Amino acid sequence: MPTPIIFDTDPGVDDAQAIAIALAHPDIELLGLTTTYGNVDIETATHNALLLSELAQQEIPVAQGAAAPLVKPKHPAPAHIHGANGLGNIELPAVRGKALDMSAAEFIVSQVNARPNEITLVAVGPVGNLAAALQLDPGIIDKVKQVVIMGGSIREGGNVTPVAEANMFNDPHAASRVLTAGWPLTLVGLDATHRCVLSPADMDKIAGAQGKLGQVLAGSYRFYSDFYRGALGIDGCCPHDSCALAWLMKPELFTTARGHLTVATEGYAEGQTIFAPEGRPFLGEHWSSTPAVEVCLNANGEAVVSWMLEVLG
Amino acid sequence: MPTPIIFDTDPGVDDAQAIAIALAHPDIELLGLTTTYGNVDIETATHNALLLSELAQQEIPVAQGAAAPLVKPKHPAPAHIHGANGLGNIELPAVRGKALDMSAAEFIVSQVNARPNEITLVAVGPVGNLAAALQLDPGIIDKVKQVVIMGGSIREGGNVTPVAEANMFNDPHAASRVLTAGWPLTLVGLDATHRCVLSPADMDKIAGAQGKLGQVLAGSYRFYSDFYRGALGIDGCCPHDSCALAWLMKPELFTTARGHLTVATEGYAEGQTIFAPEGRPFLGEHWSSTPAVEVCLNANGEAVVSWMLEVLG
Ligand SMILES: [Ca+2]
Ligand SMILES: [Ca+2]
Repeated sequence: MPTPIIFDTDPGVDDAQAIAIALAHPDIELLGLTTTYGNVDIETATHNALLLSELAQQEIPVAQGAAAPLVKPKHPAPAHIHGANGLGNIELPAVRGKALDMSAAEFIVSQVNARPNEITLVAVGPVGNLAAALQLDPGIIDKVKQVVIMGGSIREGGNVTPVAEANMFNDPHAASRVLTAGWPLTLVGLDATHRCVLSPADMDKIAGAQGKLGQVLAGSYRFYSDFYRGALGIDGCCPHDSCALAWLMKPELFTTARGHLTVATEGYAEGQTIFAPEGRPFLGEHWSSTPAVEVCLNANGEAVVSWMLEVLG
Repeated sequence: MPTPIIFDTDPGVDDAQAIAIALAHPDIELLGLTTTYGNVDIETATHNALLLSELAQQEIPVAQGAAAPLVKPKHPAPAHIHGANGLGNIELPAVRGKALDMSAAEFIVSQVNARPNEITLVAVGPVGNLAAALQLDPGIIDKVKQVVIMGGSIREGGNVTPVAEANMFNDPHAASRVLTAGWPLTLVGLDATHRCVLSPADMDKIAGAQGKLGQVLAGSYRFYSDFYRGALGIDGCCPHDSCALAWLMKPELFTTARGHLTVATEGYAEGQTIFAPEGRPFLGEHWSSTPAVEVCLNANGEAVVSWMLEVLG
């Protein structure tokens, strides 16, 4: 029985890689792509979600969602990392399909209610759509199978600020709602994703095996990995968003811990995911008062990349 | 030529160990102890500073300082960790001497001005006295030789909250002032001190070699290590404050990084020392705008403890 998922995404170069996995993996049933601003503006995110499915010759429902954060002002999209078009500024084919006539949040609520306790939500962008779904119908908390979030950082430090990861920083209020909702949740953050490096040779294998989709993955990878080389001195890129799917399908490749999350929404720590390991004594009642979740503290990066190549190579 | 230091302290069990080192080390010239609330109230801190010097048969000037934080309300002293008397609730001999007729801040300012570019400030409690000294005479920024602070945490997580270390949490506003003052500064935080464990056998050696002072160190150690065993599952204790002196005398035992500190003064991250490594690109101008300092990211814990035993054993 394949695992039914809704994939919430802001594609985005590493989102595209993860979408390719969700499309290709025989044990994943991709019910739909829900889109959010983040790496790109919302219209570009929806365009890219449609395009990537079409390049894989699949018809996947796409529901457009958040164009902006819940509370804070929107930051400009990071065109220097993902390209202005979200896919490394390469030339892209035309899109034929169009998004559904319902919002991302509506799509999530309707799907989860139609198949209670079956659906996994995998979110790899700012999590405003999940927050909006919780606003429409808090009852989904008890009806999702599980929630997997690519985002945050426990001990690894941040990538937007010294303590905040981009998805959480982009909408800390949504993150606070989603990470403390009380549903079964795993946070796959930089502590895991920074252990994984997709090399140029890895991408060559993927490009050769994925047809037209492979060309877009390889072209966007070149732009993205230029950023990694310049800013971080890495030869390759961290396939952040694919790690959420890797955790879903191969949890044994990750080290996790159980505990309580608090998301800082204000001040210098804005967007930080503060983790209190279960049972550790801290000052005051707050730290153990949020629902217990799982967080990734490490990953076997080589094995995660090997798994990506098994699926896509 | 011995290194002249002023040792700012809230004794405290691990402070007492560090004071014993400062008193015993042939290459340290201990100009004075300045006291602060923190592990204990201010009167107890001053009492213990006087007592520990007297037990070592040395006459060290003691100047009393901060009884409370600069801005936030004072938390109760952690009597369950250090004992109500700061030294594990063991019976203590009477004190003969008394504190100087000047405040800790005045003492620091006068000493530093009397010996420009010679004196190292070593602070192992909440850093309100250093903030007060900077308020009295900001000119000391260019006249201290260096400042070594036991406090904070970069990637290790906190001990009072999931992100804040006790000294910084106790007075985050003072910490913000002191850590961003622009003087040559090294932060020796939990990333280093948690690598070091002083075992019961280690303490037996110290107790045997340090006479009356050794009895107080050993008695207070028993209380303190009961806390470590219960709360953290460690057989022994982390000699936090001695690590600041270990860094001063044996910097080669530590791994450091250069970068910019920001101290969170509000919200859930209150007291967190947020570190931006030099040269790392983060969003906005703030993160590289504070003066560059050194932070410890790791320590050779066994070697640090061996050094303590060389000095005290
Ligand atoms: Ca993404
Ligand atoms: Ca102390």
